[in-house]
Amino acid sequence: MTASLDLLGIGNAIVDVLARADDAFLSAQGMAKGTMALIDTAGAERIYAAMGPGIEGSGGSAANTCAVAAALGARVGFLGKVAEDELGRVFAHDIRATGVRFPTAPLAGGAPTARCLILVTPDGQRTMNTYLGACVAFGPDDVDEAEVASAGVTYLEGYLFDPPAAQAAFRKAAKVAHGAGRKVSLTLSDPFCVGRHREAFRDFVRAETDILFANEAELLTLYGTEDFAQAVAAVRQEVGLAAITRSEKGSLVVAGTDSHEVKAVSTEVVDTTGAGDAYAAGFLAAHARGLPLAECGRWGSVAAAEAISHFGARPQADLRALVGA
Amino acid sequence: MTASLDLLGIGNAIVDVLARADDAFLSAQGMAKGTMALIDTAGAERIYAAMGPGIEGSGGSAANTCAVAAALGARVGFLGKVAEDELGRVFAHDIRATGVRFPTAPLAGGAPTARCLILVTPDGQRTMNTYLGACVAFGPDDVDEAEVASAGVTYLEGYLFDPPAAQAAFRKAAKVAHGAGRKVSLTLSDPFCVGRHREAFRDFVRAETDILFANEAELLTLYGTEDFAQAVAAVRQEVGLAAITRSEKGSLVVAGTDSHEVKAVSTEVVDTTGAGDAYAAGFLAAHARGLPLAECGRWGSVAAAEAISHFGARPQADLRALVGA
Repeated sequence: MTASLDLLGIGNAIVDVLARADDAFLSAQGMAKGTMALIDTAGAERIYAAMGPGIEGSGGSAANTCAVAAALGARVGFLGKVAEDELGRVFAHDIRATGVRFPTAPLAGGAPTARCLILVTPDGQRTMNTYLGACVAFGPDDVDEAEVASAGVTYLEGYLFDPPAAQAAFRKAAKVAHGAGRKVSLTLSDPFCVGRHREAFRDFVRAETDILFANEAELLTLYGTEDFAQAVAAVRQEVGLAAITRSEKGSLVVAGTDSHEVKAVSTEVVDTTGAGDAYAAGFLAAHARGLPLAECGRWGSVAAAEAISHFGARPQADLRALVGA
Repeated sequence: MTASLDLLGIGNAIVDVLARADDAFLSAQGMAKGTMALIDTAGAERIYAAMGPGIEGSGGSAANTCAVAAALGARVGFLGKVAEDELGRVFAHDIRATGVRFPTAPLAGGAPTARCLILVTPDGQRTMNTYLGACVAFGPDDVDEAEVASAGVTYLEGYLFDPPAAQAAFRKAAKVAHGAGRKVSLTLSDPFCVGRHREAFRDFVRAETDILFANEAELLTLYGTEDFAQAVAAVRQEVGLAAITRSEKGSLVVAGTDSHEVKAVSTEVVDTTGAGDAYAAGFLAAHARGLPLAECGRWGSVAAAEAISHFGARPQADLRALVGA
C-alpha cells in the first residue's frame, strides 16, 4: 500500500523555555554544557527561579523534526503526550499550524505539559533541563497502529528511552512499522541518554533501525569507543543508512559500502537548539522525495543552518525556498 | 525625599504570542496593519486557530519599557494584573528576572492572564490583537501609593484608557505622584486607542503629563490635525517635555522653546514589536541619570534599534554595552 504519510514522529511533547545565560550560571547550577538532563518538579522550580527572562516556544526533538519536515513539504504526523493545560494547547496549536497531524489525546488530571528549560550561552550552545510531566503517561496505547502503518518512515527520538512506558511504545511502533513493510528511523538524541540505556540502544539499533541519526559524541558513546573511524565501521555493519552530524564539519552519510561527506552550511551561530532535529528533518524530507543521499544531506545542512541562525528550535524562514524545492 | 525608584510603570500585564503572517492574512482577518485591536474570548480563539506557529514571551507596553529601563541600570517597579495561571507565572518570572519590582497581587478565580496575538508581516511591522483578560480587574486599589510616591517618574501607558477600572487607577496614580512632587509620564500607545478616548487623553495630557511619548500618527490623532508642525506646536505649549518618534526618521525632543532632532540607529527591521516601548525606556533611563536631552534621545534610539533587530519585544542584547553606559 502506498504510504499516506511520509513521516510519523513519536517523541516527547515539550514546550521550551529559552533564556540566555553565561558559563558561570551553568557551573553554579551543576549543568553539563550542551547536554540534556532530566529534572523533577523541585528542580524545575529552582532553575526557573534562577534563570533570566525567557521566551516560550514549542519544542521536543521529534516534534521539531516533524515541524521542519512539514515546512519542507513532507506529509507528516506526530504522536506525543501533552496535558489539558495552557502549554498543551500551545504545543498542539503550533504543531498543527505547521500542517502536522497530531491525533494523540491530551492527558487529563495528571502531570502538566512537559517543559524544557534551555540555557543558551554566548557561544550559541544550548544546555537543556527537561521536566517530562505528561510525557511519562505516553504508552503503547497511544501508538495508533493505523497511523504507524500508513507512514513511510516512523521516526523515534532516543529521549523516549527515559520514560519507561514510552520505551514500550517505541518498541511497539517499530514492530508495527516493520510488520507493514515500512522503515524505522532513530535519533540517538544525547550522549548522556545513550549512556543511561546503552545496551537497549545497541539492541534497538541492530535489530530495528533502518535509518540512524547521531552526532559524533552519541555514536562514540553507543559503541564505547573514542575512535571515530571504528564507530563508523560499526554503524556501517549494523544499519542500512546512517547520517552522522559533526557540527561545523558537516555530516557523513553511510549506506552499505557507500559514504558521502556533506558540508555544513555556514551561518552565524545564535542558538544551536533544534539543529540536529532540523538536520534529520531535511534529510528525511528529501529522502521521501527519492532524492540522492548527498542531496538528502544537503537539505539537512540547510535546515540545520536555519535553526542555528535564530533563537528557538522551530523554523522562522521559508525553508522550501532555502533548499530550492 | 530622594526617590528610591527611578521609574514606576503602570500598564496591562500581557503575554505576547508572536507569529509570522502575510498581508493577505491581515486583510482576511480584517486587521488594520500596525495598530492594536481589542478582542474578546471568541475573537482570541478564532485568530489563534487561524494563525501560524507562535513563540510566547512577556509583553505589555509599560512592562516592556520597565524591563528595558532595568536592563539599562535604572531602578524600576511595575504595577499590573496577571491571573494565578501559567502565563501569569511566566509574566511575573520574566519581569522580576530583569530586576523589576512587581508587587501587584495576581487575580484569583477570574479571567486568565491577558495575551496579545501579534502578527509580524515580512516588512517587520507588527499588528496586535489584545485579549485583556485579568487586566480588566486592575483598579485604583492596585495603585500602591507608597510605590508611586517613591518613584521619580510614574509612567502610564495609554492602553490603560481601555479597561475602565484601569483608567481610574491611572488618574489616582497621577494624583499621588504629583502630590509627592514626582513626575508623570504618559505614552499615547496607539492612534486608534487615542481616537477611542480623545477628549480624555487631551485633558490628561494638558493637566497631568510632565513627559509625553508619542509617535507621529498618535500625536496627529490627539490634536485632530494632519499638520505635524501644528501638532508639535500644540504639544510644546501643553507639556514640559515631549519625545515624538518618527520611525526611520528618528525622533524629535521638544522642551519649552528647545528642540532636539535625534537620529534613528539604523538596523535590519525584523520585528517592530516593542520599539516604541524601548525608546521610552532608553530615554527615561538616561533622563534618570541626569543626562542631556539629546543623549536621552540617543539612548532611546539605541534601545529601539535593538528591539527592532529581533523577533519579540524584550531585549536580547547587552543594552548597557550598546549605549556605552
